[in-house]
Amino acid sequence: MHHLILLLFFSLLTVTTTLTSPESHHLLLPSSRKLRQHDTLYCDSWRFTVETNDAGSWSTIPSICFDFVKDYVTGDRYFSDSKLVGGNSLEFANSINVSGDGKDAWIFDVDETLLFNLPYYQDHGFGSEVFDEKAFDEWMLLGEGIVLPASLSLYKELQQLGFTIFILTGRSESFRNATETNLRNVGYDNWKKLILRGPDDKHKLAVDYKSERRKALEDGGYRIRGNFGDQWSDLVGYAIAQRSFKLPNPMYYIA
Amino acid sequence: MHHLILLLFFSLLTVTTTLTSPESHHLLLPSSRKLRQHDTLYCDSWRFTVETNDAGSWSTIPSICFDFVKDYVTGDRYFSDSKLVGGNSLEFANSINVSGDGKDAWIFDVDETLLFNLPYYQDHGFGSEVFDEKAFDEWMLLGEGIVLPASLSLYKELQQLGFTIFILTGRSESFRNATETNLRNVGYDNWKKLILRGPDDKHKLAVDYKSERRKALEDGGYRIRGNFGDQWSDLVGYAIAQRSFKLPNPMYYIA
Repeated sequence: MHHLILLLFFSLLTVTTTLTSPESHHLLLPSSRKLRQHDTLYCDSWRFTVETNDAGSWSTIPSICFDFVKDYVTGDRYFSDSKLVGGNSLEFANSINVSGDGKDAWIFDVDETLLFNLPYYQDHGFGSEVFDEKAFDEWMLLGEGIVLPASLSLYKELQQLGFTIFILTGRSESFRNATETNLRNVGYDNWKKLILRGPDDKHKLAVDYKSERRKALEDGGYRIRGNFGDQWSDLVGYAIAQRSFKLPNPMYYIA
Repeated sequence: MHHLILLLFFSLLTVTTTLTSPESHHLLLPSSRKLRQHDTLYCDSWRFTVETNDAGSWSTIPSICFDFVKDYVTGDRYFSDSKLVGGNSLEFANSINVSGDGKDAWIFDVDETLLFNLPYYQDHGFGSEVFDEKAFDEWMLLGEGIVLPASLSLYKELQQLGFTIFILTGRSESFRNATETNLRNVGYDNWKKLILRGPDDKHKLAVDYKSERRKALEDGGYRIRGNFGDQWSDLVGYAIAQRSFKLPNPMYYIA
Protein backbone atom coordinates (compact mmCIF):
# COMPACT_ATOMS: atom_id res chain seq x y z
CA MET A 1 0.00 0.00 0.00
CA HIS A 2 2.83 2.42 0.83
CA HIS A 3 4.44 1.70 -2.50
CA LEU A 4 1.20 2.43 -4.29
CA ILE A 5 0.79 5.77 -2.51
CA LEU A 6 4.38 6.71 -3.31
CA LEU A 7 3.85 5.72 -6.93
CA LEU A 8 0.67 7.76 -7.07
CA PHE A 9 2.45 10.72 -5.60
CA PHE A 10 5.32 10.64 -8.06
CA SER A 11 2.97 9.95 -10.96
CA LEU A 12 0.99 13.02 -10.07
CA LEU A 13 4.16 15.04 -9.65
CA THR A 14 5.40 14.01 -13.07
CA VAL A 15 2.12 14.62 -14.85
CA THR A 16 1.50 17.90 -13.06
CA THR A 17 4.95 19.09 -13.98
CA THR A 18 4.38 18.15 -17.60
CA LEU A 19 1.03 19.88 -17.68
CA THR A 20 1.93 23.12 -15.97
CA SER A 21 5.47 23.66 -17.13
CA PRO A 22 5.93 22.57 -20.73
CA GLU A 23 9.19 24.46 -21.04
CA SER A 24 10.77 23.33 -17.83
CA HIS A 25 13.68 20.99 -18.47
CA HIS A 26 13.96 19.69 -14.96
CA LEU A 27 11.60 17.94 -12.58
CA LEU A 28 10.08 20.32 -10.07
CA LEU A 29 10.73 19.38 -6.47
CA PRO A 30 7.69 19.23 -4.20
CA SER A 31 8.69 22.56 -2.61
CA SER A 32 8.79 24.24 -6.04
CA ARG A 33 5.40 22.78 -6.83
CA LYS A 34 3.99 24.22 -3.65
CA LEU A 35 5.53 27.56 -4.51
CA ARG A 36 3.94 27.39 -7.94
CA GLN A 37 0.49 26.73 -6.46
CA HIS A 38 1.04 29.64 -4.13
CA ASP A 39 2.07 31.81 -7.09
CA THR A 40 -1.07 30.88 -9.00
CA LEU A 41 -3.25 31.80 -6.03
CA TYR A 42 -1.42 35.11 -5.75
CA CYS A 43 -1.49 35.84 -9.49
CA ASP A 44 -5.19 35.02 -9.75
CA SER A 45 -5.82 37.49 -6.93
CA TRP A 46 -3.51 40.06 -8.49
CA ARG A 47 -5.51 39.72 -11.72
CA PHE A 48 -8.72 40.29 -9.74
CA THR A 49 -7.36 43.59 -8.41
CA VAL A 50 -6.22 44.66 -11.87
CA GLU A 51 -9.46 43.83 -13.67
CA THR A 52 -11.67 45.46 -11.03
CA ASN A 53 -9.40 48.56 -11.01
CA ASP A 54 -8.69 48.04 -7.30
CA ALA A 55 -4.97 48.07 -8.09
CA GLY A 56 -5.11 51.56 -9.60
CA SER A 57 -2.05 52.50 -11.64
CA TRP A 58 0.68 49.91 -12.26
CA SER A 59 3.55 49.67 -14.74
CA THR A 60 4.64 46.03 -15.08
CA ILE A 61 3.19 42.67 -14.09
CA PRO A 62 4.63 41.06 -10.92
CA SER A 63 7.66 39.01 -11.94
CA ILE A 64 6.29 35.83 -10.33
CA CYS A 65 3.19 36.17 -12.59
CA PHE A 66 5.08 35.96 -15.90
CA ASP A 67 4.01 32.35 -16.60
CA PHE A 68 0.52 33.03 -15.31
CA VAL A 69 -0.04 36.01 -17.64
CA LYS A 70 1.60 34.21 -20.55
CA ASP A 71 -0.63 31.16 -20.06
CA TYR A 72 -3.68 33.39 -19.66
CA VAL A 73 -3.27 35.38 -22.88
CA THR A 74 -1.99 32.51 -25.02
CA GLY A 75 -4.43 29.89 -23.73
CA ASP A 76 -8.19 29.42 -23.54
CA ARG A 77 -8.90 31.81 -20.69
CA TYR A 78 -8.45 35.12 -22.50
CA PHE A 79 -10.75 34.03 -25.32
CA SER A 80 -13.28 32.55 -22.92
CA ASP A 81 -13.39 35.71 -20.79
CA SER A 82 -13.73 38.04 -23.77
CA LYS A 83 -16.37 35.80 -25.34
CA LEU A 84 -18.57 36.12 -22.26
CA VAL A 85 -18.08 39.90 -22.18
CA GLY A 86 -19.17 39.95 -25.84
CA GLY A 87 -22.21 37.91 -24.83
CA ASN A 88 -23.11 40.40 -22.07
CA SER A 89 -22.82 43.22 -24.61
CA LEU A 90 -24.97 41.52 -27.21
CA GLU A 91 -27.63 40.70 -24.62
CA PHE A 92 -27.78 44.38 -23.68
CA ALA A 93 -27.72 45.50 -27.34
CA ASN A 94 -30.67 43.23 -28.09
CA SER A 95 -32.65 44.92 -25.31
CA ILE A 96 -32.32 48.35 -26.99
CA ASN A 97 -35.03 49.63 -29.29
CA VAL A 98 -32.70 50.92 -32.00
CA SER A 99 -34.14 54.06 -33.60
CA GLY A 100 -34.06 54.64 -37.35
CA ASP A 101 -32.27 57.98 -36.94
CA GLY A 102 -28.78 56.44 -36.84
CA LYS A 103 -28.06 58.05 -33.49
CA ASP A 104 -27.77 54.87 -31.40
CA ALA A 105 -24.01 54.67 -31.06
CA TRP A 106 -21.58 52.03 -29.87
CA ILE A 107 -17.93 52.79 -29.13
CA PHE A 108 -15.04 50.38 -29.53
CA ASP A 109 -11.45 50.84 -28.43
CA VAL A 110 -8.68 49.43 -30.68
CA ASP A 111 -5.72 47.87 -28.83
CA GLU A 112 -6.59 44.68 -26.94
CA THR A 113 -10.19 45.29 -28.01
CA LEU A 114 -10.77 45.21 -31.79
CA LEU A 115 -7.14 44.23 -32.32
CA PHE A 116 -5.06 41.92 -30.17
CA ASN A 117 -1.32 42.72 -30.14
CA LEU A 118 -0.28 39.29 -28.95
CA PRO A 119 2.63 38.94 -31.42
CA TYR A 120 4.11 42.18 -30.05
CA TYR A 121 3.70 41.20 -26.42
CA GLN A 122 5.09 37.73 -27.07
CA ASP A 123 8.29 39.49 -28.13
CA HIS A 124 8.16 41.94 -25.22
CA GLY A 125 7.60 39.84 -22.11
CA PHE A 126 3.79 39.88 -21.81
CA GLY A 127 3.77 43.06 -19.75
CA SER A 128 6.88 42.24 -17.72
CA GLU A 129 8.92 44.89 -19.57
CA VAL A 130 8.28 48.62 -19.13
CA PHE A 131 6.29 49.94 -22.11
CA ASP A 132 8.60 50.83 -25.02
CA GLU A 133 6.85 53.54 -27.01
CA LYS A 134 9.26 53.45 -29.93
CA ALA A 135 9.03 49.68 -30.36
CA PHE A 136 5.23 49.78 -30.13
CA ASP A 137 5.09 52.61 -32.71
CA GLU A 138 7.06 50.40 -35.11
CA TRP A 139 4.73 47.50 -34.39
CA MET A 140 1.62 49.59 -35.10
CA LEU A 141 3.02 50.67 -38.48
CA LEU A 142 3.28 47.02 -39.49
CA GLY A 143 -0.50 46.71 -39.16
CA GLU A 144 -0.23 43.14 -37.94
CA GLY A 145 -2.51 43.17 -34.91
CA ILE A 146 -4.63 40.02 -34.90
CA VAL A 147 -8.38 39.88 -34.49
CA LEU A 148 -10.08 39.33 -31.14
CA PRO A 149 -12.88 36.98 -32.25
CA ALA A 150 -15.34 38.10 -29.54
CA SER A 151 -14.98 41.71 -30.70
CA LEU A 152 -15.39 40.99 -34.42
CA SER A 153 -18.45 38.90 -33.75
CA LEU A 154 -20.03 41.61 -31.56
CA TYR A 155 -19.10 44.32 -34.08
CA LYS A 156 -20.92 42.51 -36.89
CA GLU A 157 -23.98 41.78 -34.76
CA LEU A 158 -24.24 45.42 -33.66
CA GLN A 159 -24.14 46.56 -37.28
CA GLN A 160 -26.95 44.11 -38.09
CA LEU A 161 -28.96 45.60 -35.23
CA GLY A 162 -28.51 49.11 -36.65
CA PHE A 163 -26.02 50.65 -34.24
CA THR A 164 -23.64 53.33 -35.49
CA ILE A 165 -20.06 52.33 -34.75
CA PHE A 166 -17.39 54.72 -33.52
CA ILE A 167 -13.82 53.60 -32.95
CA LEU A 168 -12.07 55.67 -30.29
CA THR A 169 -8.41 54.93 -29.77
CA GLY A 170 -5.47 56.40 -27.87
CA ARG A 171 -3.33 55.94 -31.00
CA SER A 172 -2.19 59.16 -32.72
CA GLU A 173 -3.30 60.48 -36.13
CA SER A 174 0.04 59.44 -37.59
CA PHE A 175 -1.11 55.84 -37.26
CA ARG A 176 -4.45 56.39 -39.06
CA ASN A 177 -3.53 54.58 -42.26
CA ALA A 178 -1.81 51.65 -40.59
CA THR A 179 -4.69 51.28 -38.13
CA GLU A 180 -7.39 51.44 -40.83
CA THR A 181 -5.56 48.91 -42.97
CA ASN A 182 -5.07 46.58 -40.03
CA LEU A 183 -8.75 46.84 -39.02
CA ARG A 184 -9.97 46.16 -42.57
CA ASN A 185 -7.54 43.28 -43.06
CA VAL A 186 -8.90 41.37 -40.08
CA GLY A 187 -12.57 41.96 -41.00
CA TYR A 188 -13.86 45.28 -39.62
CA ASP A 189 -15.54 47.75 -41.94
CA ASN A 190 -18.22 50.44 -42.23
CA TRP A 191 -17.44 52.31 -39.03
CA LYS A 192 -18.84 55.83 -38.88
CA LYS A 193 -15.63 57.41 -37.67
CA LEU A 194 -12.20 56.35 -36.46
CA ILE A 195 -11.17 58.86 -33.79
CA LEU A 196 -7.43 59.17 -33.03
CA ARG A 197 -5.44 61.57 -30.83
CA GLY A 198 -4.78 64.87 -32.55
CA PRO A 199 -1.83 67.19 -31.79
CA ASP A 200 -3.81 68.87 -28.96
CA ASP A 201 -4.49 65.52 -27.26
CA LYS A 202 -0.88 64.45 -27.06
CA HIS A 203 -0.32 64.98 -23.35
CA LYS A 204 -3.82 64.28 -22.12
CA LEU A 205 -4.62 61.30 -19.95
CA ALA A 206 -6.57 58.69 -21.91
CA VAL A 207 -9.54 59.05 -19.57
CA ASP A 208 -9.75 62.81 -20.27
CA TYR A 209 -9.19 62.58 -24.04
CA LYS A 210 -11.77 59.81 -24.38
CA SER A 211 -14.35 61.56 -22.19
CA GLU A 212 -13.98 64.74 -24.30
CA ARG A 213 -14.52 62.81 -27.51
CA ARG A 214 -17.56 60.99 -26.12
CA LYS A 215 -18.97 64.32 -24.95
CA ALA A 216 -18.57 65.67 -28.50
CA LEU A 217 -20.55 62.68 -29.81
CA GLU A 218 -23.31 63.34 -27.27
CA ASP A 219 -23.32 67.01 -28.28
CA GLY A 220 -23.76 65.79 -31.86
CA GLY A 221 -26.98 64.06 -30.84
CA TYR A 222 -25.64 60.54 -30.47
CA ARG A 223 -26.97 58.29 -27.73
CA ILE A 224 -23.94 56.30 -26.57
CA ARG A 225 -25.56 52.97 -25.77
CA GLY A 226 -22.52 50.79 -25.28
CA ASN A 227 -18.77 51.16 -24.84
CA PHE A 228 -16.41 48.23 -25.21
CA GLY A 229 -12.77 48.42 -24.11
CA ASP A 230 -10.01 46.72 -22.16
CA GLN A 231 -9.00 49.69 -19.97
CA TRP A 232 -11.05 51.41 -17.27
CA SER A 233 -9.83 54.68 -18.83
CA ASP A 234 -11.83 53.69 -21.95
CA LEU A 235 -15.00 53.48 -19.90
CA VAL A 236 -15.05 55.91 -16.98
CA GLY A 237 -14.77 59.74 -16.71
CA TYR A 238 -17.78 61.63 -18.10
CA ALA A 239 -20.20 61.23 -21.04
CA ILE A 240 -20.29 57.59 -19.95
CA ALA A 241 -22.15 55.06 -22.08
CA GLN A 242 -25.47 53.59 -20.96
CA ARG A 243 -23.56 50.34 -20.35
CA SER A 244 -19.81 49.89 -20.36
CA PHE A 245 -18.08 46.58 -20.94
CA LYS A 246 -14.62 45.81 -19.58
CA LEU A 247 -12.56 43.32 -21.55
CA PRO A 248 -9.70 41.51 -19.82
CA ASN A 249 -6.14 42.82 -20.03
CA PRO A 250 -3.61 41.63 -17.46
CA MET A 251 -0.62 42.90 -19.50
CA TYR A 252 -0.70 46.67 -19.09
CA TYR A 253 -2.53 49.63 -17.56
CA ILE A 254 -3.33 53.01 -19.15
CA ALA A 255 -4.46 55.91 -16.97
CA MET B 1 5.74 1.21 -21.32
CA HIS B 2 2.08 1.09 -22.25
CA HIS B 3 1.26 -0.29 -18.83
CA LEU B 4 3.13 2.55 -17.21
CA ILE B 5 1.28 5.18 -19.24
CA LEU B 6 -2.06 3.57 -18.42
CA LEU B 7 -1.12 3.44 -14.76
CA LEU B 8 -0.08 7.09 -14.85
CA PHE B 9 -3.36 8.00 -16.48
CA PHE B 10 -5.52 6.22 -13.93
CA SER B 11 -3.39 7.47 -11.06
CA LEU B 12 -3.90 11.01 -12.23
CA LEU B 13 -7.60 10.39 -12.71
CA THR B 14 -7.92 9.05 -9.18
CA VAL B 15 -5.91 11.79 -7.56
CA THR B 16 -7.60 14.53 -9.57
CA THR B 17 -11.00 13.17 -8.60
CA THR B 18 -9.99 13.11 -4.97
CA LEU B 19 -8.64 16.63 -5.10
CA THR B 20 -11.41 18.32 -7.00
CA SER B 21 -14.46 16.47 -5.79
CA PRO B 22 -14.19 15.54 -2.13
CA GLU B 23 -17.87 14.72 -1.85
CA SER B 24 -18.21 12.67 -5.00
CA HIS B 25 -18.84 9.02 -4.15
CA HIS B 26 -18.09 7.69 -7.60
CA LEU B 27 -15.10 7.85 -9.90
CA LEU B 28 -15.50 10.48 -12.59
CA LEU B 29 -15.27 9.11 -16.09
CA PRO B 30 -12.83 10.89 -18.40
CA SER B 31 -15.74 12.58 -20.20
CA SER B 32 -17.04 13.99 -16.91
CA ARG B 33 -13.59 15.19 -16.10
CA LYS B 34 -13.39 17.04 -19.41
CA LEU B 35 -16.82 18.54 -18.73
CA ARG B 36 -15.59 19.68 -15.35
CA GLN B 37 -12.56 21.42 -16.90
CA HIS B 38 -14.89 23.07 -19.38
CA ASP B 39 -17.16 24.16 -16.53
CA THR B 40 -14.25 25.65 -14.63
CA LEU B 41 -13.19 27.65 -17.69
CA TYR B 42 -16.76 28.87 -18.09
CA CYS B 43 -17.26 29.64 -14.40
CA ASP B 44 -13.98 31.52 -14.16
CA SER B 45 -15.11 33.65 -17.12
CA TRP B 46 -18.58 34.07 -15.63
CA ARG B 47 -16.92 35.30 -12.44
CA PHE B 48 -14.88 37.78 -14.48
CA THR B 49 -18.07 39.27 -15.95
CA VAL B 50 -19.71 39.46 -12.52
CA GLU B 51 -16.77 41.08 -10.74
CA THR B 52 -16.17 43.67 -13.50
CA ASN B 53 -19.93 44.44 -13.63
CA ASP B 54 -20.04 43.41 -17.30
CA ALA B 55 -22.84 40.96 -16.45
CA GLY B 56 -25.10 43.71 -15.10
CA SER B 57 -28.06 42.45 -13.06
CA TRP B 58 -28.34 38.73 -12.25
CA SER B 59 -30.36 36.76 -9.71
CA THR B 60 -28.74 33.34 -9.18
CA ILE B 61 -25.39 31.79 -10.04
CA PRO B 62 -25.31 29.48 -13.11
CA SER B 63 -26.22 25.98 -11.92
CA ILE B 64 -23.04 24.47 -13.40
CA CYS B 65 -21.02 26.88 -11.23
CA PHE B 66 -22.34 25.63 -7.89
CA ASP B 67 -19.15 23.69 -7.03
CA PHE B 68 -16.99 26.49 -8.41
CA VAL B 69 -18.60 29.18 -6.24
CA LYS B 70 -18.66 26.89 -3.21
CA ASP B 71 -14.96 26.09 -3.62
CA TYR B 72 -14.18 29.76 -4.16
CA VAL B 73 -15.89 31.12 -1.03
CA THR B 74 -14.95 28.23 1.27
CA GLY B 75 -11.37 27.87 0.03
CA ASP B 76 -8.26 30.02 -0.19
CA ARG B 77 -9.26 32.14 -3.16
CA TYR B 78 -11.84 34.38 -1.50
CA PHE B 79 -9.47 35.23 1.33
CA SER B 80 -6.55 35.71 -1.04
CA ASP B 81 -8.54 38.04 -3.32
CA SER B 82 -9.91 40.13 -0.46
CA LYS B 83 -6.48 40.31 1.17
CA LEU B 84 -5.00 41.88 -1.96
CA VAL B 85 -7.88 44.36 -2.21
CA GLY B 86 -7.20 45.29 1.41
CA GLY B 87 -3.55 45.76 0.45
CA ASN B 88 -4.49 48.08 -2.44
CA SER B 89 -6.63 50.10 -0.04
CA LEU B 90 -3.95 50.41 2.60
CA GLU B 91 -1.38 51.46 0.01
CA PHE B 92 -3.72 54.25 -1.11
CA ALA B 93 -4.58 55.20 2.49
CA ASN B 94 -0.88 55.54 3.29
CA SER B 95 -0.50 57.99 0.41
CA ILE B 96 -3.06 60.39 1.93
CA ASN B 97 -1.96 63.26 4.12
CA VAL B 98 -4.61 62.77 6.81
CA SER B 99 -5.68 66.11 8.24
CA GLY B 100 -6.16 66.70 11.96
CA ASP B 101 -9.73 67.95 11.42
CA GLY B 102 -11.29 64.47 11.47
CA LYS B 103 -12.85 65.02 8.05
CA ASP B 104 -10.90 62.38 6.12
CA ALA B 105 -13.54 59.69 5.85
CA TRP B 106 -13.56 56.06 4.82
CA ILE B 107 -16.76 54.14 4.12
CA PHE B 108 -17.31 50.43 4.68
CA ASP B 109 -20.26 48.32 3.62
CA VAL B 110 -21.41 45.53 5.99
CA ASP B 111 -22.52 42.30 4.27
CA GLU B 112 -19.71 40.44 2.52
CA THR B 113 -17.47 43.36 3.50
CA LEU B 114 -17.06 43.87 7.26
CA LEU B 115 -19.09 40.73 7.90
CA PHE B 116 -19.07 37.51 5.90
CA ASN B 117 -22.38 35.61 5.91
CA LEU B 118 -20.83 32.30 4.90
CA PRO B 119 -22.80 30.20 7.43
CA TYR B 120 -26.05 31.55 5.93
CA TYR B 121 -25.02 30.94 2.33
CA GLN B 122 -23.73 27.47 3.18
CA ASP B 123 -27.31 26.67 4.22
CA HIS B 124 -28.78 28.43 1.18
CA GLY B 125 -26.91 27.10 -1.81
CA PHE B 126 -24.09 29.68 -2.19
CA GLY B 127 -26.19 31.94 -4.40
CA SER B 128 -27.91 29.17 -6.32
CA GLU B 129 -31.24 29.85 -4.57
CA VAL B 130 -33.26 33.01 -5.20
CA PHE B 131 -32.71 35.47 -2.31
CA ASP B 132 -35.08 34.71 0.59
CA GLU B 133 -35.63 38.00 2.42
CA LYS B 134 -37.42 36.44 5.39
CA ALA B 135 -34.73 33.83 5.97
CA PHE B 136 -31.98 36.43 5.70
CA ASP B 137 -33.81 38.74 8.14
CA GLU B 138 -33.83 35.90 10.67
CA TRP B 139 -30.14 35.27 10.05
CA MET B 140 -29.26 38.95 10.60
CA LEU B 141 -31.08 38.96 13.96
CA LEU B 142 -28.83 36.12 15.14
CA GLY B 143 -25.80 38.42 14.75
CA GLU B 144 -23.60 35.52 13.70
CA GLY B 145 -21.87 36.94 10.64
CA ILE B 146 -18.19 36.02 10.73
CA VAL B 147 -15.31 38.41 10.25
CA LEU B 148 -13.61 38.98 6.90
CA PRO B 149 -9.98 39.18 8.07
CA ALA B 150 -8.86 41.52 5.26
CA SER B 151 -11.55 44.02 6.27
CA LEU B 152 -10.84 43.93 10.01
CA SER B 153 -7.15 44.40 9.36
CA LEU B 154 -7.76 47.38 7.03
CA TYR B 155 -10.32 48.87 9.44
CA LYS B 156 -7.81 48.88 12.30
CA GLU B 157 -5.00 50.29 10.15
CA LEU B 158 -7.23 53.11 8.89
CA GLN B 159 -8.13 54.05 12.45
CA GLN B 160 -4.43 54.15 13.32
CA LEU B 161 -3.86 56.48 10.35
CA GLY B 162 -6.57 58.83 11.63
CA PHE B 163 -9.41 58.20 9.18
CA THR B 164 -13.00 58.66 10.35
CA ILE B 165 -14.96 55.49 9.71
CA PHE B 166 -18.54 55.41 8.42
CA ILE B 167 -20.42 52.17 7.97
CA LEU B 168 -23.06 52.42 5.25
CA THR B 169 -25.29 49.37 4.84
CA GLY B 170 -28.41 48.41 2.92
CA ARG B 171 -29.73 46.78 6.10
CA SER B 172 -32.77 48.49 7.70
CA GLU B 173 -32.89 50.38 11.01
CA SER B 174 -34.72 47.41 12.59
CA PHE B 175 -31.44 45.51 12.42
CA ARG B 176 -29.36 48.22 14.12
CA ASN B 177 -28.89 46.43 17.43
CA ALA B 178 -28.17 43.03 15.92
CA THR B 179 -25.73 44.58 13.44
CA GLU B 180 -23.90 46.62 16.07
CA THR B 181 -23.60 43.62 18.36
CA ASN B 182 -22.34 41.43 15.53
CA LEU B 183 -19.77 44.03 14.45
CA ARG B 184 -18.48 44.52 18.00
CA ASN B 185 -18.37 40.78 18.69
CA VAL B 186 -16.01 40.14 15.76
CA GLY B 187 -13.71 43.07 16.57
CA TYR B 188 -14.94 46.34 15.02
CA ASP B 189 -15.40 49.41 17.20
CA ASN B 190 -15.20 53.21 17.31
CA TRP B 191 -16.97 53.92 14.02
CA LYS B 192 -18.28 57.46 13.68
CA LYS B 193 -21.72 56.43 12.47
CA LEU B 194 -23.53 53.29 11.38
CA ILE B 195 -25.93 54.33 8.63
CA LEU B 196 -28.90 52.02 7.93
CA ARG B 197 -31.94 52.36 5.64
CA GLY B 198 -34.68 54.46 7.21
CA PRO B 199 -38.39 54.15 6.40
CA ASP B 200 -38.01 56.58 3.45
CA ASP B 201 -35.25 54.48 1.90
CA LYS B 202 -37.20 51.26 1.82
CA HIS B 203 -37.90 51.10 -1.90
CA LYS B 204 -34.80 52.86 -3.16
CA LEU B 205 -32.18 51.10 -5.20
CA ALA B 206 -29.03 50.56 -3.16
CA VAL B 207 -27.01 52.71 -5.57
CA ASP B 208 -29.38 55.67 -5.05
CA TYR B 209 -29.72 55.28 -1.28
CA LYS B 210 -25.95 54.98 -0.84
CA SER B 211 -25.17 57.91 -3.15
CA GLU B 212 -27.63 60.12 -1.19
CA ARG B 213 -25.99 59.20 2.09
CA ARG B 214 -22.48 59.83 0.73
CA LYS B 215 -23.65 63.19 -0.61
CA ALA B 216 -24.92 64.08 2.88
CA LEU B 217 -21.47 63.26 4.29
CA GLU B 218 -19.80 65.48 1.68
CA ASP B 219 -22.28 68.25 2.53
CA GLY B 220 -21.19 67.80 6.15
CA GLY B 221 -17.62 68.65 5.14
CA TYR B 222 -16.23 65.11 4.95
CA ARG B 223 -13.70 64.20 2.29
CA ILE B 224 -14.60 60.66 1.29
CA ARG B 225 -11.16 59.24 0.62
CA GLY B 226 -11.96 55.56 0.29
CA ASN B 227 -14.97 53.30 -0.11
CA PHE B 228 -14.77 49.56 0.45
CA GLY B 229 -17.58 47.22 -0.58
CA ASP B 230 -18.44 44.01 -2.41
CA GLN B 231 -21.15 45.42 -4.74
CA TRP B 232 -20.72 47.96 -7.53
CA SER B 233 -23.83 49.63 -6.11
CA ASP B 234 -21.76 50.37 -2.99
CA LEU B 235 -19.22 52.25 -5.08
CA VAL B 236 -20.78 53.96 -8.12
CA GLY B 237 -23.54 56.59 -8.55
CA TYR B 238 -22.59 60.06 -7.29
CA ALA B 239 -20.58 61.55 -4.40
CA ILE B 240 -18.06 58.86 -5.31
CA ALA B 241 -15.01 58.32 -3.10
CA GLN B 242 -11.55 59.40 -4.21
CA ARG B 243 -10.78 55.69 -4.63
CA SER B 244 -13.28 52.83 -4.54
CA PHE B 245 -12.34 49.25 -3.76
CA LYS B 246 -14.37 46.30 -5.02
CA LEU B 247 -14.27 43.16 -2.91
CA PRO B 248 -15.16 39.84 -4.50
CA ASN B 249 -18.67 38.43 -4.29
CA PRO B 250 -19.71 35.73 -6.75
CA MET B 251 -22.82 34.75 -4.71
CA TYR B 252 -25.27 37.60 -5.33
CA TYR B 253 -25.89 40.93 -7.03
CA ILE B 254 -27.57 44.06 -5.60
CA ALA B 255 -28.65 46.88 -7.94
